[in-house]
Amino acid sequence: MSEGPFAPLRKVAVRRVNDGAPSDARDVVAVEEPLEIRLHDRPFVVIMRTPGADRELTAGFLLAEGIITHGDALGAVEHCRHPDHPDVHNVVNVFFRRDAAVEIDRLLAERRNVLANSSCGVCGRVTIESLASRAAPLGTNGAFAAAVLQHLPAQLRQRQHVFEQTGGLHGAALFTAAGEFVDAAEDVGRHNAVDKVIGRMLLEDRVPLPAHVLVVSGRASFEIVQKAWLAGIEAICAVSAPSSLAIELADEARITLIGFARDRGFNVYTHPDRLIGV
Amino acid sequence: MSEGPFAPLRKVAVRRVNDGAPSDARDVVAVEEPLEIRLHDRPFVVIMRTPGADRELTAGFLLAEGIITHGDALGAVEHCRHPDHPDVHNVVNVFFRRDAAVEIDRLLAERRNVLANSSCGVCGRVTIESLASRAAPLGTNGAFAAAVLQHLPAQLRQRQHVFEQTGGLHGAALFTAAGEFVDAAEDVGRHNAVDKVIGRMLLEDRVPLPAHVLVVSGRASFEIVQKAWLAGIEAICAVSAPSSLAIELADEARITLIGFARDRGFNVYTHPDRLIGV
Repeated sequence: MSEGPFAPLRKVAVRRVNDGAPSDARDVVAVEEPLEIRLHDRPFVVIMRTPGADRELTAGFLLAEGIITHGDALGAVEHCRHPDHPDVHNVVNVFFRRDAAVEIDRLLAERRNVLANSSCGVCGRVTIESLASRAAPLGTNGAFAAAVLQHLPAQLRQRQHVFEQTGGLHGAALFTAAGEFVDAAEDVGRHNAVDKVIGRMLLEDRVPLPAHVLVVSGRASFEIVQKAWLAGIEAICAVSAPSSLAIELADEARITLIGFARDRGFNVYTHPDRLIGV
Repeated sequence: MSEGPFAPLRKVAVRRVNDGAPSDARDVVAVEEPLEIRLHDRPFVVIMRTPGADRELTAGFLLAEGIITHGDALGAVEHCRHPDHPDVHNVVNVFFRRDAAVEIDRLLAERRNVLANSSCGVCGRVTIESLASRAAPLGTNGAFAAAVLQHLPAQLRQRQHVFEQTGGLHGAALFTAAGEFVDAAEDVGRHNAVDKVIGRMLLEDRVPLPAHVLVVSGRASFEIVQKAWLAGIEAICAVSAPSSLAIELADEARITLIGFARDRGFNVYTHPDRLIGV
């Protein structure tokens, strides 16, 4: 496995639970880190990405956002280092050719950070600290039984009525620690399905939600964990893989993060202390 | 299947190709439409979503963005109608309770539209027209053989080195109409993988890319089609389902949109005229 600042993979320790029987294991997760794009040294946007091909990502992003219309407009596109963090490579600076550069003031006036919660692209650590300043680590109100957790993805699937017909929607559901169904939603956007479920609880003034578990049909990214944290949800159960930054954030938030929840088993990436019966 | 402004599903006509043999069929796709969130009647953000639970989505989004911290802050959260479009329900207006409302000016000054390309949440039609004002429908330079297309997802999969190890990454790849591999990328973000591939072509000054096909490992959303259009790519081949708005945009852009490319077959949602041998 490649190492260094652009390694797309990272090894992590997990607790593997199969039919209620736990064992310690190693897993390999996809790296997720913020990338800050600067235009002529001025911050433009922060996006979450897997390191590697950062210059290409930057160019493609600027095309899709309408900032450039062809490659000719681009001058230098290069990583820049932060003096305090010489070992991180999460900032790319873009210089336009002269005729394109006159537009920068207008662009920066029109646009702000797309990802408002990431104050800085220096590293995921800073991103997490920025979020941690808004929310405290969660308490341990919920105790989650493996025998309950392993059936939740199937229960979400039963409620994904639209997905069954189209294969095109993400699902999210909320359950109590005892496994009682609370709410579910579907959406073309993974994050939207989570926002719909949490939003209903907000409208009913039931947030925060200790002793609840959020089940998602796909992967667990930084933003999914962020949403759960701000809603005070103590456990997340994803059918697929978590990203590196999702794991780091869940660790900080003191959320129990479960992935690959399928086939009568699952991986526990953070805070297994809330699990009972394993 | 439910109808009306909040129906999450839509019936579409498709050309189904199996082992090179075409047939006309009906498919059901997930609806994707923009939702404009307004704070005290003032535009705040436009997000792409599947209609339904819009009030809940709005509340959850405002929590995740740090605009509110609990449900108490919310007053009325309700759909509003556009006088020219009484039949669409893609705008939600939020009123905060008095003590929260003082923050609105600051919020609106700090934040602009997250999705900069959607000028308005009235309906997908307006969103498409806004984009169409920036890009012309594509020409027909490429001819794509079904026998070539049906092998492309497997070729992308062979190049998804990281996915095989983690199950956590999206992949995108670019091929010529003749099926020659050009480039591939992986990322935790679906859109990022596409931006990386197109961005490399931009940096090599090879955009626009007529007679090329973009292959994506997952679903085809509005934004994937938008990125292909701005790069002049004439065909998109998605392993999974397209959304309703992806189909509408591909139709307008004159892009050949292919979905469910697997098991020696695929569905053609738009512009099958570029296909040969079917």
